[in-house]
Amino acid sequence: MIKVVAQFFIKSGEVEKALILGKKLVLDTRKENGCVSYELCQSLKDDANIAFIEEWENQAALDAHFQTPHFTDLVPRILALTEQETVITAFKKVE
Amino acid sequence: MIKVVAQFFIKSGEVEKALILGKKLVLDTRKENGCVSYELCQSLKDDANIAFIEEWENQAALDAHFQTPHFTDLVPRILALTEQETVITAFKKVE
Repeated sequence: MIKVVAQFFIKSGEVEKALILGKKLVLDTRKENGCVSYELCQSLKDDANIAFIEEWENQAALDAHFQTPHFTDLVPRILALTEQETVITAFKKVE
Repeated sequence: MIKVVAQFFIKSGEVEKALILGKKLVLDTRKENGCVSYELCQSLKDDANIAFIEEWENQAALDAHFQTPHFTDLVPRILALTEQETVITAFKKVE
């Protein structure tokens, strides 16, 4: 099992647009094989900090995700709305 | 529902000690009221980057967590093993 936290820091004024793209990404991604959970979240302290918190069955499923049309279309469009470097970390579960 | 991602960056040579403390924190925390899930994770690319990925029923449950004996004992002991600022973000689920 692989957990992923992908944090995007969106430009002021572009947050609603990023959320629309993010919601579409969630709905398409949840249909993928090997996607255990995939949630779009928003920081309680900073609306412009949005994150995908994800769980995948294995690395192969995650690698396949990166090749999907919804990923290759939507993620660059979200990245274009960011104002700071995106922070993406993949984790294994220890406990 | 509140999601929390708490990322700790542990000093080289102290990772095993941090994981032992973290596992104890997980086991005690999962017994708390309002704790939906609480997982200790480790970056696939950097063993020293460990994270708690959490889900709580509401803010009151999370606030109560900060007052528990296991939190007030174990978290400072983990923080003492870090070499960079800890990054803790609380999120609401958008989708």
